[in-house]
Amino acid sequence: MKNTQRHFVDQIIPHRTPKQKGIGQAPVNIALSKYWGKRNVDLNLPTNSSLSVSLPGLGTETHLEWMENQSDEIYLNKTLLKSDNAFAQRTSLFLDLFRPNTQGGFVVNTINSVPTAAGLASSASGYAALALALNDCFQWDLPLKRLSLLARLGSGSASRSLYNGFALWHKGQLDNGMDSYAEKIDQAWPELCIGLLEIDVSEKPISSTQGMQNTVNHCELYAAWPDKAEADLQKIHQAIERKDFQQLGQTSENNALAMHATMIATWPPILYWQPESVAAMHQIWQLRSEGCEVYFTMDAGPNLKLLFLRQDTQTIQDHFPSVKVIHPFSDE
Amino acid sequence: MKNTQRHFVDQIIPHRTPKQKGIGQAPVNIALSKYWGKRNVDLNLPTNSSLSVSLPGLGTETHLEWMENQSDEIYLNKTLLKSDNAFAQRTSLFLDLFRPNTQGGFVVNTINSVPTAAGLASSASGYAALALALNDCFQWDLPLKRLSLLARLGSGSASRSLYNGFALWHKGQLDNGMDSYAEKIDQAWPELCIGLLEIDVSEKPISSTQGMQNTVNHCELYAAWPDKAEADLQKIHQAIERKDFQQLGQTSENNALAMHATMIATWPPILYWQPESVAAMHQIWQLRSEGCEVYFTMDAGPNLKLLFLRQDTQTIQDHFPSVKVIHPFSDE
Repeated sequence: MKNTQRHFVDQIIPHRTPKQKGIGQAPVNIALSKYWGKRNVDLNLPTNSSLSVSLPGLGTETHLEWMENQSDEIYLNKTLLKSDNAFAQRTSLFLDLFRPNTQGGFVVNTINSVPTAAGLASSASGYAALALALNDCFQWDLPLKRLSLLARLGSGSASRSLYNGFALWHKGQLDNGMDSYAEKIDQAWPELCIGLLEIDVSEKPISSTQGMQNTVNHCELYAAWPDKAEADLQKIHQAIERKDFQQLGQTSENNALAMHATMIATWPPILYWQPESVAAMHQIWQLRSEGCEVYFTMDAGPNLKLLFLRQDTQTIQDHFPSVKVIHPFSDE
Repeated sequence: MKNTQRHFVDQIIPHRTPKQKGIGQAPVNIALSKYWGKRNVDLNLPTNSSLSVSLPGLGTETHLEWMENQSDEIYLNKTLLKSDNAFAQRTSLFLDLFRPNTQGGFVVNTINSVPTAAGLASSASGYAALALALNDCFQWDLPLKRLSLLARLGSGSASRSLYNGFALWHKGQLDNGMDSYAEKIDQAWPELCIGLLEIDVSEKPISSTQGMQNTVNHCELYAAWPDKAEADLQKIHQAIERKDFQQLGQTSENNALAMHATMIATWPPILYWQPESVAAMHQIWQLRSEGCEVYFTMDAGPNLKLLFLRQDTQTIQDHFPSVKVIHPFSDE
């Protein structure tokens, strides 16, 4: 695995000599058409393309420094992690792919403005920010598409977090993974709102990686997912270009529910939903039946992300007082 | 539709002359391998075979009498229903298939010992009891397999409610539906317990018939269901013969969750689950992780049916104080 990944990285980065302290910042992203299933686990190559929207103001800022003659020091939200901490270990394994051939270690300061591992894709913003920090530290001056290839190795969905606004991660065709990168969809939709409905922000019972591999291997219904995901992505892309909110909302909600359906039909079953998740779903459907155009999407966790237009903000806030409203295109 | 059904009935019943008052009794049944999807809506022919266990003591008793020169009178739990009541209309439409050529109507007294339309398959016991009452009233003296063909026209799952214990409804191959009947699986399992966990006994928001047709027509993941259902049925049948409770429980729970998964992935989404359903699922999984062999199945409703062995009754009752425990084979 390590050799495969190092070989992949060698094709992208120009050298392994750190030049300066590096800084990277990246937003979390919400997939409207989901990534669920890997065709290559070593290289994080997906079975299907995916499409996301980034959430400005929520994400990760990472500071990186190479220090001679010491081992890695990983700080998460200003706390030094022990070397057996899962986040620290995963970060160091990723940094292994980029280390100079000299003795030393990285000092990494990661600040997340979202709870870690709560279904809000902090690993996506985390590895995107780390790829940006590495690019800055080594002064590679790589374009974002190339950095998305590197971020992908840390977490598949991180490939999409290099961009603000809408992003499309192409699944790619090549076995070597060089064509599985994300790029920006150059469309702004100022009216589009995302409402974060936090049900439970504790650690996930099963990681996305484990969840998707169990689904691929132990769910008969999964066979239809890759084609459905591609078709949904095309419909969502079209909806974005036409600003057809109903098509965006319906397709996104159906895509998320179909992804969760494949988990539910897996053995042993994978159910990220909590009772409050289901209560919120019924509430959304009730609201929609009353004429309010609100939809939702969900990732590998119990939290819901509402999709609605700015004109319905007050109605949404009245029905979901705890909702945190994000305008993905407020500055564009 | 009516002509197709009358033609089907004409191939089974020997005559249309009522002889006496008729009585029929039938139990509800819980499918361990589910029926979900019709290949022929008029004749209630399923896309897959299914396997059930009946619940003695819960079901329907129906009294039937033919009266000259009056229209149908349908009583449900001793209350005379208005002619525009949905239950009364559906019953009369079913009785149309069997009416004599003389003027008159049926007086039907139906007593359900389960809440109507609460996901506890009262339509299954209802149409099975009605088929038995018709057989008694007309003195056809038909074998149970033939009556299961008639009951099927009222409600697919009713074909399985002609029997106590385990029953297998063969999907059949013929277009005319004459080979789509249920028969008894001649196996007793005295240790097997069913625990009814009632979450909500109010009327279902969407009928099973509507739910399954929407799934067949508007769910990409459904394509894999018919083959999976057949494979699950074989595993459950084998588990019954070997008294392999783990195989029975795992396959039944996975089968039920896969059926619900196809609904969840349908557009518009179909979610029979309530928040309390999900709370109960997590509780069952927690209990199982602690070593108690308990599984569940669910039909088109929010209620759970627990599967466990008699030795675990006390543990189950401690964790689910409201559970109603049924011994399907207590008298065998």
